[in-house]
Amino acid sequence: MSEFDLIDLIRRRAGIERNDVRLGIGDDAALVLPPPGHELAICTDTLVAGVHFPADTAAADIGWKALAVNLSDLAAMGATPAWALLALTLPTADAAFVEAFCTGFGALAAQHRVALIGGDTTSGPLTITVTVHGFVPPEQALRRDGARVGDAVFVTGTLGDAAAALWLRRRSGDPALRAQLDPRLDRPEPRIAAGAALRGAATACIDVSDGLLADLGHIADRSGVGIDIETDALPSSPALLGAFAAADRARLQLAGGDDYELAFTAPAHRAGDLQRDLARIGCGATRIGRVVEGAGVRALDADGAPITLPARGWEHFA
Amino acid sequence: MSEFDLIDLIRRRAGIERNDVRLGIGDDAALVLPPPGHELAICTDTLVAGVHFPADTAAADIGWKALAVNLSDLAAMGATPAWALLALTLPTADAAFVEAFCTGFGALAAQHRVALIGGDTTSGPLTITVTVHGFVPPEQALRRDGARVGDAVFVTGTLGDAAAALWLRRRSGDPALRAQLDPRLDRPEPRIAAGAALRGAATACIDVSDGLLADLGHIADRSGVGIDIETDALPSSPALLGAFAAADRARLQLAGGDDYELAFTAPAHRAGDLQRDLARIGCGATRIGRVVEGAGVRALDADGAPITLPARGWEHFA
Repeated sequence: MSEFDLIDLIRRRAGIERNDVRLGIGDDAALVLPPPGHELAICTDTLVAGVHFPADTAAADIGWKALAVNLSDLAAMGATPAWALLALTLPTADAAFVEAFCTGFGALAAQHRVALIGGDTTSGPLTITVTVHGFVPPEQALRRDGARVGDAVFVTGTLGDAAAALWLRRRSGDPALRAQLDPRLDRPEPRIAAGAALRGAATACIDVSDGLLADLGHIADRSGVGIDIETDALPSSPALLGAFAAADRARLQLAGGDDYELAFTAPAHRAGDLQRDLARIGCGATRIGRVVEGAGVRALDADGAPITLPARGWEHFA
Repeated sequence: MSEFDLIDLIRRRAGIERNDVRLGIGDDAALVLPPPGHELAICTDTLVAGVHFPADTAAADIGWKALAVNLSDLAAMGATPAWALLALTLPTADAAFVEAFCTGFGALAAQHRVALIGGDTTSGPLTITVTVHGFVPPEQALRRDGARVGDAVFVTGTLGDAAAALWLRRRSGDPALRAQLDPRLDRPEPRIAAGAALRGAATACIDVSDGLLADLGHIADRSGVGIDIETDALPSSPALLGAFAAADRARLQLAGGDDYELAFTAPAHRAGDLQRDLARIGCGATRIGRVVEGAGVRALDADGAPITLPARGWEHFA
């Protein structure tokens, strides 16, 4: 199968049509028409085989995840997704791999009305770089630099399942438990609706990709504040609660990463309204801590004493 | 050096400031404000070490080329560049490499007023994916599908130097000759001004990256026409003319690629005006053939007989 056959295959399978796309895949560049009066949110994320996903991950799951991690960044800005580009580097022109990859990518793209407008297909070690674009009303984007002392800290959904799934996969752990946890690792659901609901309500927001402590650290740094987390308050899935002791759970939830939940800050008095608004769109949000004077993020135990962890999150080149 | 130190280094070195960038590197996504009433041209290109550039290429040249090949796609659309994202996958956190890479990338970015607004830095085999954005007035983009029977075919600048440089590098050829040709391989100059000048004048346009025959083949396919090239008319640099026999030169020019010149079609009666307009901005353009009924691209010799080549251009997975 030639490079051009692969591009045809991707074009047919991996996205939806949108009427703001004037010219899609097949020219030197795509042409799109941004909506007047909106800011455009743009980001890019690379997945490398064996680094960002286990090398034996199913191709459809890799396709889903490559788009999901990018849409999660748009969610964290409160942006509405629109267009994606896919740069796919493959060791061989494996049509079955590309078809399956596009099935996963395309399913998530359809769910969020994302058009695949361009990309590049090259030979080399398996690496996927996706770039996504979304719209956000002017001045309403959720940034990392707006947390204020006294704000409450929240997280959507539950934490730790993806890291637990990875841990179990490496050790060939209990298949029944893995079946419950694996979807959180392989098919993360970007919190697009929650991000949109938080516009004008959250003071700062980030998605949990590297690990809660590491990611909240970016909010603390950019906002010039400290953050205290009540470790016992971290939300767990029933599967995680049933299978891991408290200390292991805490480690997975604080530093595991790959959760793609939104961690955000908001004035404490708005907590009730905000949780109600999110519940209305089917998204749980748990209060997990507070913004304090100082710097950095501390995870506190039930007695208010800081917990020390071997690592605070994933870091490349660590 | 950590991932975050690398990102700081890249942010300081690799782009310019623009006032349509509301939020640059350092959040979940960048925020930009597209100009009202324009279409946005977006494209992405990946460079893999050992595939798209010799593995021993200087880091500054890799940085330049990673941006140049993308800007060349914008040039081929007639778009004015604005914003770039850089996804950089590196085997190790080599600060010297990244600094030199950013010097090359930044020099070209400054030349074309490109702001680096985001990216991703990950560990893995050396791979660079750049995504660029440019503006084009509505309905004025240069596409591949507008060539009409009877149009003349043109190319900017000269062809074959980059492929000759690569050929000589692999064989440790004459250093003096290589010094003349190497810049065309390592530091291609995207034809941004020429692309803008061709808006409203060219009927179809593409940049010559894979090889003239392969690239013109895309115009022929998308326009539903054939293209005949007069091989003797192909423009050569003095260095190429002096060092290669006619048959070798033809092969390098027809199928070598990496030229990053613009190949375009326009009504034959507009040839004089068009060449004059391009000359005014310092860009030569040579008439090299014509659009005919039929399909595909033929390279003709002085007697009008088709030339057969071992390959028509670079293809991944060939």
